Amino acid sequence: MAAITRHQSNQKLSRVVVHGETVYLSGLTAEDKTVDTEAQTRQVLARADELLAGVGTDRSKLLLTQIYLRDTGDFDAMNRAWIDWLGEAAPPARITVGADFALAEIRVEILFTAAL
Amino acid sequence: MAAITRHQSNQKLSRVVVHGETVYLSGLTAEDKTVDTEAQTRQVLARADELLAGVGTDRSKLLLTQIYLRDTGDFDAMNRAWIDWLGEAAPPARITVGADFALAEIRVEILFTAAL
Amino acid sequence: MAAITRHQSNQKLSRVVVHGETVYLSGLTAEDKTVDTEAQTRQVLARADELLAGVGTDRSKLLLTQIYLRDTGDFDAMNRAWIDWLGEAAPPARITVGADFALAEIRVEILFTAAL
Repeated sequence: MAAITRHQSNQKLSRVVVHGETVYLSGLTAEDKTVDTEAQTRQVLARADELLAGVGTDRSKLLLTQIYLRDTGDFDAMNRAWIDWLGEAAPPARITVGADFALAEIRVEILFTAAL
Repeated sequence: MAAITRHQSNQKLSRVVVHGETVYLSGLTAEDKTVDTEAQTRQVLARADELLAGVGTDRSKLLLTQIYLRDTGDFDAMNRAWIDWLGEAAPPARITVGADFALAEIRVEILFTAAL
Repeated sequence: MAAITRHQSNQKLSRVVVHGETVYLSGLTAEDKTVDTEAQTRQVLARADELLAGVGTDRSKLLLTQIYLRDTGDFDAMNRAWIDWLGEAAPPARITVGADFALAEIRVEILFTAAL
């Protein structure tokens, strides 16, 4: 059987779970939630880089990204940060929908699946 | 090619699909929808145990859990049931967002991906 | 390591990503968004057929389908198109929730994971 490894676990979740060659990250939100959607997205993406690096992979190995926006009117703002970040890296499959969050100041939350 | 097996299928969906060593469950809601979010979550988690057991795996092999709440104000109520259930089991990656459901009395729906 | 291939990529996403034997499609919406939910769903499903065929698989190999509806009151309308399409094909695991979209006329968006 393929091995399962978990990283940065607490009583509710693991920030990163690796199963075989597939990497699942928990939903990521910005550390500083006082800023706008574009800035929150940049923080989320920087955090994804750190977590992916922690298991030896990176943004060029993304498979699927599920993006949740509090306000779908922020689609273009999110995309500015996203396109800058992705740059020359290979783009994953992606979906973006609007959703509510438990904290009022969260503008965006992103769920990543990647390959090792 | 890795085998695909389906379990408890109807004309719309299969409750469990196994592909290679990865297990996908359909979104689970409580059987008794007259109760509050914490109690609905406990029902969902008990149903997940049954479905995982049916293909020879269990809650210690969860990879990713996507939790949808009708009211994100119920985040703590959901978490009480979740933390009790997870106990010493290894936590999966997780995301929780607010969403609407087709039935007004559904308070929580959970989508699980697990390993065999 | 399992190979990753990407198809129909732009600067934001790839319409199809294949990793090993798993296929991830980006969220699909109808081309003609002036029609109702049932008709939009039929368009989405026809588009899924094309994308799956492009990598040598088909609707009989679906693993997981995540369906987002603008109005959960359209659940039955979506299901009519879904059940017609699925026909004798093997049903995937599935979840359906309500969500907002960036374009007001989008009634339904569907995210597919399939096997090769």
